[in-house]
Amino acid sequence: MPATGEQDDLVQDIIEEPATYSDAVLSSDDEVCVRYSSQSDTNNSSFYQTATKKLASFESLPNREHHEDFIKKCAEILIREAVFEGTNRKNRVLQWNSPEELQKLMDFTLRTSPSSHDELLDLLRNTVNYSVKTGHPYFVNQLFSSLDPYGLVGQWATDALNPSVYTYEVSPVFTLMEEVVLREMRTIVGFEGGRGDGIFCPGGSIANGYAISCARHKFQPEIKATASVTNLLKNIANIILLLLQTKGLHSLPRLVLFTSEDAHYSIKKLSSFLGIGTDNVYLIRTDDRGRMDPSHLIQEIERALAEGGAPFMVSATAGTTVIGAFDPIDQIADICEKYNLWLHVDAAWGGGALMSSKHRSLLKGIERADSVTWNPHKLLTAPQQCSTLLLRHEGLLSETHSTHAAYLFQKDKFYDTKFDTGTKKFNGDKHIQCGRRADVLKFWFMWKAKGTLGFEKHINKVFDNAKFFADSIRNRVGFEMLIDQPECTNVCFWYIPESLRNAKQDSDYKERLHKVAPKIKERMMKEGSMMVTYQAQKSHPNFFRIVFQSSGLDRADMLHLIEEFERLGRDL
Amino acid sequence: MPATGEQDDLVQDIIEEPATYSDAVLSSDDEVCVRYSSQSDTNNSSFYQTATKKLASFESLPNREHHEDFIKKCAEILIREAVFEGTNRKNRVLQWNSPEELQKLMDFTLRTSPSSHDELLDLLRNTVNYSVKTGHPYFVNQLFSSLDPYGLVGQWATDALNPSVYTYEVSPVFTLMEEVVLREMRTIVGFEGGRGDGIFCPGGSIANGYAISCARHKFQPEIKATASVTNLLKNIANIILLLLQTKGLHSLPRLVLFTSEDAHYSIKKLSSFLGIGTDNVYLIRTDDRGRMDPSHLIQEIERALAEGGAPFMVSATAGTTVIGAFDPIDQIADICEKYNLWLHVDAAWGGGALMSSKHRSLLKGIERADSVTWNPHKLLTAPQQCSTLLLRHEGLLSETHSTHAAYLFQKDKFYDTKFDTGTKKFNGDKHIQCGRRADVLKFWFMWKAKGTLGFEKHINKVFDNAKFFADSIRNRVGFEMLIDQPECTNVCFWYIPESLRNAKQDSDYKERLHKVAPKIKERMMKEGSMMVTYQAQKSHPNFFRIVFQSSGLDRADMLHLIEEFERLGRDL
Repeated sequence: MPATGEQDDLVQDIIEEPATYSDAVLSSDDEVCVRYSSQSDTNNSSFYQTATKKLASFESLPNREHHEDFIKKCAEILIREAVFEGTNRKNRVLQWNSPEELQKLMDFTLRTSPSSHDELLDLLRNTVNYSVKTGHPYFVNQLFSSLDPYGLVGQWATDALNPSVYTYEVSPVFTLMEEVVLREMRTIVGFEGGRGDGIFCPGGSIANGYAISCARHKFQPEIKATASVTNLLKNIANIILLLLQTKGLHSLPRLVLFTSEDAHYSIKKLSSFLGIGTDNVYLIRTDDRGRMDPSHLIQEIERALAEGGAPFMVSATAGTTVIGAFDPIDQIADICEKYNLWLHVDAAWGGGALMSSKHRSLLKGIERADSVTWNPHKLLTAPQQCSTLLLRHEGLLSETHSTHAAYLFQKDKFYDTKFDTGTKKFNGDKHIQCGRRADVLKFWFMWKAKGTLGFEKHINKVFDNAKFFADSIRNRVGFEMLIDQPECTNVCFWYIPESLRNAKQDSDYKERLHKVAPKIKERMMKEGSMMVTYQAQKSHPNFFRIVFQSSGLDRADMLHLIEEFERLGRDL
Repeated sequence: MPATGEQDDLVQDIIEEPATYSDAVLSSDDEVCVRYSSQSDTNNSSFYQTATKKLASFESLPNREHHEDFIKKCAEILIREAVFEGTNRKNRVLQWNSPEELQKLMDFTLRTSPSSHDELLDLLRNTVNYSVKTGHPYFVNQLFSSLDPYGLVGQWATDALNPSVYTYEVSPVFTLMEEVVLREMRTIVGFEGGRGDGIFCPGGSIANGYAISCARHKFQPEIKATASVTNLLKNIANIILLLLQTKGLHSLPRLVLFTSEDAHYSIKKLSSFLGIGTDNVYLIRTDDRGRMDPSHLIQEIERALAEGGAPFMVSATAGTTVIGAFDPIDQIADICEKYNLWLHVDAAWGGGALMSSKHRSLLKGIERADSVTWNPHKLLTAPQQCSTLLLRHEGLLSETHSTHAAYLFQKDKFYDTKFDTGTKKFNGDKHIQCGRRADVLKFWFMWKAKGTLGFEKHINKVFDNAKFFADSIRNRVGFEMLIDQPECTNVCFWYIPESLRNAKQDSDYKERLHKVAPKIKERMMKEGSMMVTYQAQKSHPNFFRIVFQSSGLDRADMLHLIEEFERLGRDL
């Protein structure tokens, strides 16, 4: 249909290269739909395009003329102010404002009408300005920190590609990357030949939830197979497994799992979420260094059995949240073998130590685990979030979680569908998520950038930093350690102001000491000079837990941080 | 401690501004730890810094000298190749390679030694090159698409700040943003005064899981209160609720939930994960437009009751995955009221329509829901992932999921802790996740950029596109629609090649038609000219489901896509 006179005027008005179009359709008053001849596209001899007089700023497609300069300016602001200034020791970790103040300083309100690019640039600057700089060397507050430059590039690339890892078809690169990274991680854990299975999860808590789910699925009540009747019993077991998945827990005996009293709260939380109930998470005592007591574990398993409960799982921790303790995995594995229990190791925090030949003995026995949670976003400083669950068993994730959605996992695809559904290897249907971010690229890119050797050096350096910090405060006046020889890079300690140093015998000493950490914390937050968390635990009054996982820190930083505590707390 | 002669040489060798340092400690052979005097830092009169001869490339801290140029180059590549070229109609949606081919084209292997910056730039280019361009206008394959320029900037900012939204203290800006955005979304849903609760979740499946978890927690078995004994029964109910959380499901009756046979698979999947069992998800029939049949729902509730089961929840769908149908929420709400069931609305896909006064009647009655899943990353094109669960009830998320981790939620903080633990409003302990990405910034930034009005125009445009597409193929030779009047922006249809057009009466017609879509899909993938998914459903042979959610598409694109089907399928 050739353009009418009116349309033709509009076309002349709008189109840059009028010579190339062959016909036009008027779409609306200020829009014209033009059929072009294409040079660059080898497949189509012609294609339609709509030309618009006014740019519609609501549109969800990048437009070079309208957006290129804006996006570049934003990237510049981020690189300058967040990446480099935000991680510069000379700047603050944060600029503290109470919620009420912050609401006045920054316009959070959502409005009917759009904002200009200049207004948006201001909002972006404010967002950076008022956010805590978690990549700052003196943000030692959490089990994550750092702003790894290669990880950042990986994240930015992920965002620019905006994938969702369903199937090979939609995410070819990320599917293969996941396979390579997870296999390598399994190899490092020590699963034979890197075999087994694995997934990326949105955080360690959910990874632990997957582990509980798999363990429950695999649980075979009342079957104690002898070698001779294995096959027969396997068939019976399969029927029971099927019932378990489809019938729900109300038809089951009371499942019981075991973890230490210092384990991460997600074990309880996810047990509740999965319908197991927090009462059925039996907490095992820890020793004076925070490690699970194997003899108490045996007692509690026996108690659960005597009560008629059904023990099915032990979750050992490699690197506890507060103290950084490593449970004795080998001993626990022996107990799990004896009682036929699933052994999960929550190495969300401590897993990174596996990459160092010097420190990996902390996790001795982990290769005997049925499942392992390991978060590269913690000790290995991959950007948020990068969490994995690794399994020694092939196929179980899929058996436990698949529903075979027809609209994703078509069986008549033109390529070998083992790459997204057929086998355990590339199975897109083993997640409880449907859409899923590609959390692998950033970590893979870091691995490429640093090499396995780089990760080893990184781990050695952060452990060295923590040791140097602990050695420096151990006998320093005003410092007292919670645990003399920390196993991981968490160092827990009290700072004792001068006024309290001779008051240890006083009846209110603990009470007074308990108030010190919150006061120091308030001062450090308001000055923005560093961020270190504190907490009470058991009968201990509030103590600080400083955590090192950035290899950008060094011994000078350790000394600086120690002096900061003295400066902030001396006069309390 | 003043520097020794040897150290002094090293210091002179390394330090840029030797005048400013006051003393130095040798850390290792090529490292020196220097105490500087600071000018810019107002709090510290001096600080330590380590100077290093050789830059350690494994370090997790950005170093201007080493990284600035590299990061800028990476950003340039991404802006040019992924953002603009990747969304340009003249380029391909993807460059197809089989998994085996791709493994040869790109070096996925992880090595011991690091890669150079040049090698990394190549890997980055390859990653972009071989990835599917989900922001390309002709990626109409999934319930997400687009590369919104403002959303992208929001993601990049999130990454540069690398937050984890635990508490106000660690994420002040993001905590307040979440509050503003969730309240506004609740207002749009129609919850009175925007009150209630809400969370950002890693995907709609997990949001649906939260809904089931909350519904289960609130479930009050065998209590049919009359007004006069309400208070007494409330006390009993509270005890039962507590037991439910702590005792686990084995102590409960068989819980039953209801959803339509066309609902998303996550309802079954998460029911299994939560221990309810897939058998206890009763699937309700849909009508010929894919909507839940309320009379069948009543029948099934009655059946469950007759069987001694305990119905506790109905999950209605607003925008089904394949057909895009909207269940009749008002009618379902009446039934839920009658039987005292939790009403969840899975509006992960269709929720965006609430932002248009023209289309929001599709979700009439949603304000009566107890909970709503709504994913801005779908119809509103926020980047992956941005999913929310919104609740009409305050406090329930926290009651259901809190464990009160002492190391995060200290009670003696110096600021008003209602902003992270105290109230329902800013409660950090209502998630099953611990660490959590700030998924809010990108969406908030888009909202600021476009205004609510911009979102309305966006929704109107994508619905208009879908209607135009449907109107254009309805009577076009070679096309047949699955549903004549699609409710959402999914259009399901068959393309019927010439060879089949007169074969409708043949006994093998369905079988032959079933093979057409996979063949067309293969051709489009190999050419990379567009991506549209297909599937079979019930007795229907394979049909295409094209999905529109990018407002960067227009009527010209609709015509182009239609002609593409003809070009690819005509000769089959």
